Amino acid sequence: MAPRDTQPKLGPDQLDDLAVLLDVVRSAGSSTRPALVHRSHLGRSVVAQRTAELLDIGLIAEDGLAASAGGRAPRRLRFRSEAGRVLAATLGATSISAAISDLAGSISVQREELFDLALGPERVLARLEVIFADLLEADSEQRPSAPPLWGIGVGLPGPVEFATGRPVAPPIMPGWDGYPARERLAKHFDVPAWVDNDVNLAALGELRAGMAKGLDDVIFVKIGTGIGAGLVSRGRLHRGAQGAAGDIGHVAVQADEAVLCRCGNVGCLEALASGYALGRDAARAAIEGTSAYLKLKTAEGKAVDARSVAEGASNGDAFCVDLLNRSGRLVGETLATLVNFYNPSLIVIGGGISGAGNILLAGIRETIYRRSLPLATRDLRIALSSLGEVAGTMGAAWLVTDELFSRACLGSWIDEGSPVGLPEIGTAQPA
Amino acid sequence: MAPRDTQPKLGPDQLDDLAVLLDVVRSAGSSTRPALVHRSHLGRSVVAQRTAELLDIGLIAEDGLAASAGGRAPRRLRFRSEAGRVLAATLGATSISAAISDLAGSISVQREELFDLALGPERVLARLEVIFADLLEADSEQRPSAPPLWGIGVGLPGPVEFATGRPVAPPIMPGWDGYPARERLAKHFDVPAWVDNDVNLAALGELRAGMAKGLDDVIFVKIGTGIGAGLVSRGRLHRGAQGAAGDIGHVAVQADEAVLCRCGNVGCLEALASGYALGRDAARAAIEGTSAYLKLKTAEGKAVDARSVAEGASNGDAFCVDLLNRSGRLVGETLATLVNFYNPSLIVIGGGISGAGNILLAGIRETIYRRSLPLATRDLRIALSSLGEVAGTMGAAWLVTDELFSRACLGSWIDEGSPVGLPEIGTAQPA
Repeated sequence: MAPRDTQPKLGPDQLDDLAVLLDVVRSAGSSTRPALVHRSHLGRSVVAQRTAELLDIGLIAEDGLAASAGGRAPRRLRFRSEAGRVLAATLGATSISAAISDLAGSISVQREELFDLALGPERVLARLEVIFADLLEADSEQRPSAPPLWGIGVGLPGPVEFATGRPVAPPIMPGWDGYPARERLAKHFDVPAWVDNDVNLAALGELRAGMAKGLDDVIFVKIGTGIGAGLVSRGRLHRGAQGAAGDIGHVAVQADEAVLCRCGNVGCLEALASGYALGRDAARAAIEGTSAYLKLKTAEGKAVDARSVAEGASNGDAFCVDLLNRSGRLVGETLATLVNFYNPSLIVIGGGISGAGNILLAGIRETIYRRSLPLATRDLRIALSSLGEVAGTMGAAWLVTDELFSRACLGSWIDEGSPVGLPEIGTAQPA
Repeated sequence: MAPRDTQPKLGPDQLDDLAVLLDVVRSAGSSTRPALVHRSHLGRSVVAQRTAELLDIGLIAEDGLAASAGGRAPRRLRFRSEAGRVLAATLGATSISAAISDLAGSISVQREELFDLALGPERVLARLEVIFADLLEADSEQRPSAPPLWGIGVGLPGPVEFATGRPVAPPIMPGWDGYPARERLAKHFDVPAWVDNDVNLAALGELRAGMAKGLDDVIFVKIGTGIGAGLVSRGRLHRGAQGAAGDIGHVAVQADEAVLCRCGNVGCLEALASGYALGRDAARAAIEGTSAYLKLKTAEGKAVDARSVAEGASNGDAFCVDLLNRSGRLVGETLATLVNFYNPSLIVIGGGISGAGNILLAGIRETIYRRSLPLATRDLRIALSSLGEVAGTMGAAWLVTDELFSRACLGSWIDEGSPVGLPEIGTAQPA
């Protein structure tokens, strides 16, 4: 690493230029200096200087010659996504899913295990730290020249104040309220860390690498144990004032019976249409015998849950089909309001709904197309996620790289030093 | 005007720079060249060149000397908001409100008259054109050197496809579906025109000149004859995929009685809580005698409407207070869902609710704070509009200037000529 304070560093305006250039290079994948001048609207000399910086610190590399546009063929430049590693994880109510990705959100190693979130932040995060350390070790064994760790991104299944990375009054996470999760992870691994709501991260995954890629107005809905949404406005995550946007699980819906929600209110969407609600209703139907399929399953000594309802439905059990359809209609009712309010061009349905997807989707579509205004549904697509369960973990990795290469973060590279393994910024001379 | 094609014009990159500079100058009000270099992140020579262009075409003016920062005192530059005039209007169900503003949204002349929107687009827009022409004439008489007309902005009380400026299936505007309102106005006055939903424009007015100024996440709610919302995400209007975002009037709410809405559905918020609903319930109460105040008013031969309910409430009539409170609670119920979904830092309540504001507000606040999640309401402000009825017309004027000085529009200045009274862009020489 170059010694600090011996070379001039970059000023704020030059940093801005650097962030703009990095953005262009990252989204283009491969580019040339003339193309960078064109797309960044920066001057030729500024691009030459900042490109030299990026080459020098190893964030971009020269990669052969591009096609000539008349004169000398320009050199091709590419973003070096292999320069660093990122740890990404999503915590569910009863599981931990963790992975290593490169700087372009591409996941190499992944691990999933059951772990109860209700054990509290100390035990859960201690376990996550062990899993992360194991992943790093396994990865480093596989490829001895594995790059250094640059950052950590974690999704939690509840509201998170994004700026501080602390959960705020999360209904299904006893003991987590206000816990400094971001601080703890950053300290433990000595790299920057970010913590966000898991559904926001799944929406980010869909936006960066899934079916929402390139779209402006998107609602991502996760139907798992709970129900939540992630919002995209003008191509970027809409987190809201406290980073709490997208909480649709505790919206009151019109239902025949008054069901108490774990949040304390009555008639919440989540209490009636989530995976948790499906499992509860399935267990009751198995006992009461209203579903032949579920009754048989119980008689065979097997547990009955939301997955059993999906299985029953694909086996043609009328009760299970009805239950999934009702769930879809209730979700659709809430979404119909939000479609009028938000006017998205795409709704992506994700979460642990697996095989039940198409029946749920039918109920959701039917209700939205019936209850929303014609203009708002004219070109609206409603589809199942193509990324599936991995969307959240991919989003966690993308969160880290988006934040690492933001102007704010590049600024702190200057003040506090670049990430491990990189020379200081601002010490390179133009090529 | 300089003859076209005799001088070099600006390329796309230079236009981008011009738009960036204009944006900085407009939002700063007054600036200097060094300050423009700093804020725009453009190079010194680019700023000099583009500033010369803007001076030459009269969009900015030199305005004395600023304080010196050591060397020679830099010249102050200001945006010439007086260089052009803008016509702005909002059409209500039964009224037309029209005004003239400068290029900074400041309104000079204003006029309001009753006119029934249900007479259809031909008659209504013909009337609007007469009012606009009268306003221009009156203004030009008052100040003989009045600047030329640069653009028109109009708000309509229904969904509008923003890109085309055509109403789409508007529930309270018979005959308007698909009518090319934007095209007609642009052709009649031979200037660019934009048409948008009136609530979007009121939200824009609040964002540019009202209590939402400088905020990132805002919901503006208009409670008038109908009910609608305008959304701000990261400091800009969120219009949604078809420009139809904010339609909350036809959200189903939980009510004791099944009331048919003018949209054809049952149980819509608008059918139960709007000014229209208040008037309907007031008329019934006057006949049935459930409200002493309203009964007396009818006995005196006076008409009873939403305004009478507000008057009754401020005179302590229990029925009227209850009715307004119920209306507030129903609006609050819908907003509670949207607060969880959108997580705004401010909700502005506007529209023709006048004296009834505080009682309505109490009902809205009570319900939102009870039903929304704690994190989403922790720092949430809910307040009555300070701009009142003029918000929409101010927003219409701001819409025109925002669009006129956008990159897209500046580009068409090059291709098709600058607005009337301005020399061509791209013909100036640096000072």
